[in-house]
Amino acid sequence: MLTGKHTWVFNNRPVILSTGVTGGPFEANGHLADDFDILHDDLYMGKETYEKAHQFLLEEAVGKVMEKRQMTKDDIQFFLAGDLINQITPSSFAASTHGIPYLGLFGACSTSMEGLALSAFIVNYDGAEYVITGASSHNAAVEKQFRYPTEYGGQKPPTAQWTVTGAGAALVGKNKGQDENHPCITSATIGKVIDMGLSDPFNMGGAMAPAAADTIIKHLQDLKLEPDHYDLIVTGDLGRIGQKAALDYMEQQGVKLDPQKFRDCGLMIYTEDQEVFSGASGPGCSAAVFYGHLLKRMKQGEFKRILVVATGALLSPLSFQQGQSIPCIAHAVAVEYKNT
Amino acid sequence: MLTGKHTWVFNNRPVILSTGVTGGPFEANGHLADDFDILHDDLYMGKETYEKAHQFLLEEAVGKVMEKRQMTKDDIQFFLAGDLINQITPSSFAASTHGIPYLGLFGACSTSMEGLALSAFIVNYDGAEYVITGASSHNAAVEKQFRYPTEYGGQKPPTAQWTVTGAGAALVGKNKGQDENHPCITSATIGKVIDMGLSDPFNMGGAMAPAAADTIIKHLQDLKLEPDHYDLIVTGDLGRIGQKAALDYMEQQGVKLDPQKFRDCGLMIYTEDQEVFSGASGPGCSAAVFYGHLLKRMKQGEFKRILVVATGALLSPLSFQQGQSIPCIAHAVAVEYKNT
Repeated sequence: MLTGKHTWVFNNRPVILSTGVTGGPFEANGHLADDFDILHDDLYMGKETYEKAHQFLLEEAVGKVMEKRQMTKDDIQFFLAGDLINQITPSSFAASTHGIPYLGLFGACSTSMEGLALSAFIVNYDGAEYVITGASSHNAAVEKQFRYPTEYGGQKPPTAQWTVTGAGAALVGKNKGQDENHPCITSATIGKVIDMGLSDPFNMGGAMAPAAADTIIKHLQDLKLEPDHYDLIVTGDLGRIGQKAALDYMEQQGVKLDPQKFRDCGLMIYTEDQEVFSGASGPGCSAAVFYGHLLKRMKQGEFKRILVVATGALLSPLSFQQGQSIPCIAHAVAVEYKNT
Repeated sequence: MLTGKHTWVFNNRPVILSTGVTGGPFEANGHLADDFDILHDDLYMGKETYEKAHQFLLEEAVGKVMEKRQMTKDDIQFFLAGDLINQITPSSFAASTHGIPYLGLFGACSTSMEGLALSAFIVNYDGAEYVITGASSHNAAVEKQFRYPTEYGGQKPPTAQWTVTGAGAALVGKNKGQDENHPCITSATIGKVIDMGLSDPFNMGGAMAPAAADTIIKHLQDLKLEPDHYDLIVTGDLGRIGQKAALDYMEQQGVKLDPQKFRDCGLMIYTEDQEVFSGASGPGCSAAVFYGHLLKRMKQGEFKRILVVATGALLSPLSFQQGQSIPCIAHAVAVEYKNT
């Protein structure tokens, strides 16, 4: 049901029944290593190319999702996924491997919540009993495509972000009175593209901050909520610079968030010792941090209600080369865990 | 409502309230020139790059959709679009221009029906009153990215297809008893990725034929329909070679289609004199032919029920270079016009 101008409320409260989270060697040394289902000690993961490793990460995450519920692909009606690679081939090839009817998405790093919002909508209205949605990224594949092969050792400014090697997938299912045992998806706000004229691809967080702020404000307005309705509002991924900018933007518009309850997936995944400039990013970051780490903390009783705001920078190397600025977007999904 | 395993039935019969169709100079000389709203006599369309012209085609199509209903962007809740360009920048930049909350899609040439299926689902369940969906392509932008800049004059084999320069967009709205005046979207079947191991990017139609056949068969099975329920089953775009292959695949599986009622958008848009090898293709082809030409023929009483099956080859230049085969998909949307 559309509530306000941009927000869907899911009265049937679809549930996240299981998740699968995979990562690479850098993530294995990170702060949230314990929250991954599978971690690889090599970026190639036994594959010939980084792109095939990227695909494999998503395949494994989807496999884990099904394994945990003892389901097979025939139990799942639809698979919604996307990534940053040209023509989202890792997602499409993974969809081919699993053979589940597939809807390809592109929202850059916002893909995780674009997929979860659409999956919740479909399940809420009996368009499926079970949907799997996933988002993924691979540091070396993304760097090669957007900037330089990592082997070049190109230098980056402190505003840059580090693309996560990881995938996160979730099984969204009909709520059959499972509110006590599983997190429910209660609403989603679809963002619009906001382009403030910024054009520095090494400062994505700064470019994405206005889109994140806009979507959070619209979500709160549409549902007539105060920010403290949520125990946590978490972006993915603004990084250090973007997070501060988003707080400032919101305050300018009269929405004051408690900085303690406003976190960023890109600032959670790695340790302080890992040199990731302004923080982590990539579609796999918010997917892995939310489906792995944050849902675990919800189940442990730490948070009852979380709003996940995934942000995407919708540029391409070519659009940058042609002198265009960076259009950005953010989609927000609200999740609630009754048992906490 | 999920019917069968892969098909949504839209009981509230969302309607296509208006459409916008734009094209380039080659399309202006084509067979369906009269069915375009705007035709350009230059591939650059007054822009600096082919990619910006690509974006402009979609912006204009969306503008036409709103203009015909005397609506503004504030009347539209969501915009669903995609294209073939890396990171679908033409669609995302157009979404930025129009400022409508945006869901980016990637399904290669199947994007047109992926967008229409999702739009119909959202509108059917009150997720929006009005959604605009669109798909587009630009011959020179796509050739440059997937093969060679057109200025090189690279030669192609007869199995190749010609990417359409064009965009098609549609306004999908709630049915307020408008069945008599507008085409209704009655059902949609979401396809799975099928990869038969073919790897020739100059024979996309052949690669996509099994996906088209699979989706058509599943659609008929899910809804317990015979092929002749539809006055026309139209693919987009298999071309000459793929179309024949799809007919053969279906016949092998016991589904015999009347070749007179099984057409392909890629074989309709250009004249016999235009040298387009095996036919046309591109996300803009099925969008322009269906939203422009076929809906007009429906309104003129020629067809009461059409099934549009948009097919996508989900490869990238890199996946081809890395020796991978071509995963393909097809999504089908059924449209009915009562007044005929």
